[in-house]
Amino acid sequence: MARVTIREIARRAGVSKGAVSYALNGQPGVSEETRARVLKVAEELEWVPNPVARQLSVARSETFGLILARPAQTLSEEPFYMAFVGGLEGVLSERSYALALRTVPGTEEELAAYRKWSREKRVDGVVVVDIKADDPRIPLLKELGLPTVLVGDPSLAEGLTCVWTDSTTAMSEAVDHVAELGHHRVARVAGPPDHGHVWIRDQAYAAAVRRTGLSAEVVHTDFSGDQGASATRQLMSSATPPTAIIYDNDLMAVAGLSTLGNLGVRCPDEVTLIAWDDSALCRITHPTLTAMSHDVVGYGAEVATRLFDLLEGAEPAAHLYSTPKLQARESSGPPPG
Amino acid sequence: MARVTIREIARRAGVSKGAVSYALNGQPGVSEETRARVLKVAEELEWVPNPVARQLSVARSETFGLILARPAQTLSEEPFYMAFVGGLEGVLSERSYALALRTVPGTEEELAAYRKWSREKRVDGVVVVDIKADDPRIPLLKELGLPTVLVGDPSLAEGLTCVWTDSTTAMSEAVDHVAELGHHRVARVAGPPDHGHVWIRDQAYAAAVRRTGLSAEVVHTDFSGDQGASATRQLMSSATPPTAIIYDNDLMAVAGLSTLGNLGVRCPDEVTLIAWDDSALCRITHPTLTAMSHDVVGYGAEVATRLFDLLEGAEPAAHLYSTPKLQARESSGPPPG
Repeated sequence: MARVTIREIARRAGVSKGAVSYALNGQPGVSEETRARVLKVAEELEWVPNPVARQLSVARSETFGLILARPAQTLSEEPFYMAFVGGLEGVLSERSYALALRTVPGTEEELAAYRKWSREKRVDGVVVVDIKADDPRIPLLKELGLPTVLVGDPSLAEGLTCVWTDSTTAMSEAVDHVAELGHHRVARVAGPPDHGHVWIRDQAYAAAVRRTGLSAEVVHTDFSGDQGASATRQLMSSATPPTAIIYDNDLMAVAGLSTLGNLGVRCPDEVTLIAWDDSALCRITHPTLTAMSHDVVGYGAEVATRLFDLLEGAEPAAHLYSTPKLQARESSGPPPG
Repeated sequence: MARVTIREIARRAGVSKGAVSYALNGQPGVSEETRARVLKVAEELEWVPNPVARQLSVARSETFGLILARPAQTLSEEPFYMAFVGGLEGVLSERSYALALRTVPGTEEELAAYRKWSREKRVDGVVVVDIKADDPRIPLLKELGLPTVLVGDPSLAEGLTCVWTDSTTAMSEAVDHVAELGHHRVARVAGPPDHGHVWIRDQAYAAAVRRTGLSAEVVHTDFSGDQGASATRQLMSSATPPTAIIYDNDLMAVAGLSTLGNLGVRCPDEVTLIAWDDSALCRITHPTLTAMSHDVVGYGAEVATRLFDLLEGAEPAAHLYSTPKLQARESSGPPPG
């Protein structure tokens, strides 16, 4: 007789393989009703635990890793990371997993940390953010065989599982919004150009301003509020300042709004501002901020779910999570004059 | 001859024991100048590494644990936690440590997680928040012998190391501010009364309103924006609504400000609002929010530093980190009429 598999129990009980695994291992993450149904099916099929699989399961660290090669203060300032980590935790907590969070000064330290985690079996998988072109982390993670979900575009993922949002379509919508309001001069305050998603937005922005015939410029920053403020100051001190600015995150847009206030420039009467991500910050400023809006908590949850799927045998794949949508608010208006 | 100790090297080199440890172990966290000085002193004293201590050091997980028995969304909404985690990470990253972050539904799961972490040597120490009276976590952590820093008042710490901020003095200052502006009716929107620091603020608030002769009420919440909004609505629908409200965090104060806007109640013309913690949120609302202000990133850094000190042999002690100070902004004003 063929061995009874988790898959077979899942099929008969009408639940996922993950749910069967929790139910059979006495772990939280399934309702008591589901647990009872799974145990009944397992008994009917005369299922016996595979001792090797059992051992593997016990040997798990029940920890996923996330490393940020950004200043530690990013965590306290950047709403994207707060929401993303909150979304990861929502899924991890259902399965009693911890998130091992590290901040490192640069790529070398990040690579060393993955080697150490892999060698000491400290994590069952990792979430990798801020993907770059020819990212050295990708070959290392493949070599280590560490289950990995990249947060970034499939064009950068080199065959690893990735979860992405469609920045190209979103940037096109942001530029269209500016053009439809009647603006002629737009600017983009962007993150660092070596970040894959920044580069992709740079390309989409260039294509959209060509298409709409806007005059355009780009200032690259490190994503911080400080650099968002100084980029705004730089743009507004030009002989022909922009009448609309599209920022790469909410933090820089909020800092830009304050900078306009300090310069005595009115938003939206003189300049339209557009943020990106749409955290709660965008709704508590005055004026409230137009933003390219997506559910960052849900994005984190999707990433964690895909990493659990990998542990349960899913094949690597690219998953589009969402396309940020324009949420127009008080910071949008026609150009002056 | 007596064994040369780290303490002796530290004394002669004029640096901390921690710095000696990094220097001798070739770890980051000290300047090259300090490392050279420490190595020179060690050589002069003919120091030899203690192989047992060395082994212990190698066997460390290089991870600290932090468990939140709050909904995972707290992380994405509550600026206190991300600032606090950012502060922890700032110190941890200097020593190549990770933070194992877990969210759990309640105390039982939190206790189980400490047992598991201790048994599997997954963390070298833990940071414990939201301390309650007769907190069951304290005897367990003592029994496990897991190095622990409590974030909370010494009266609750039962002899474990704690780092605290002086809520009693701060609450007294907040109530004085309201009284000095000429208000007669104040309200407090508080966190859950079983949290030690909420209880301490409740007592301080009761004493301060007695002292100043204000009429006062308290609504307890779960710290969420939703409950901050509904508490504000409840207070303002009373026959004699308060003309000043003191909130237990920034999130509820921001939610309260929005609620006033929806009710058509003007701040500060009709109601003065005071937030607590003073994250960046308080400076981007309109009007900007008066807050009891302290450096939460620094608080997290202090907690991490004290936990490293414990690993290096420091005795348990209570450390006052700071007393939040009034930061008056646009949301403060005299009562109407």
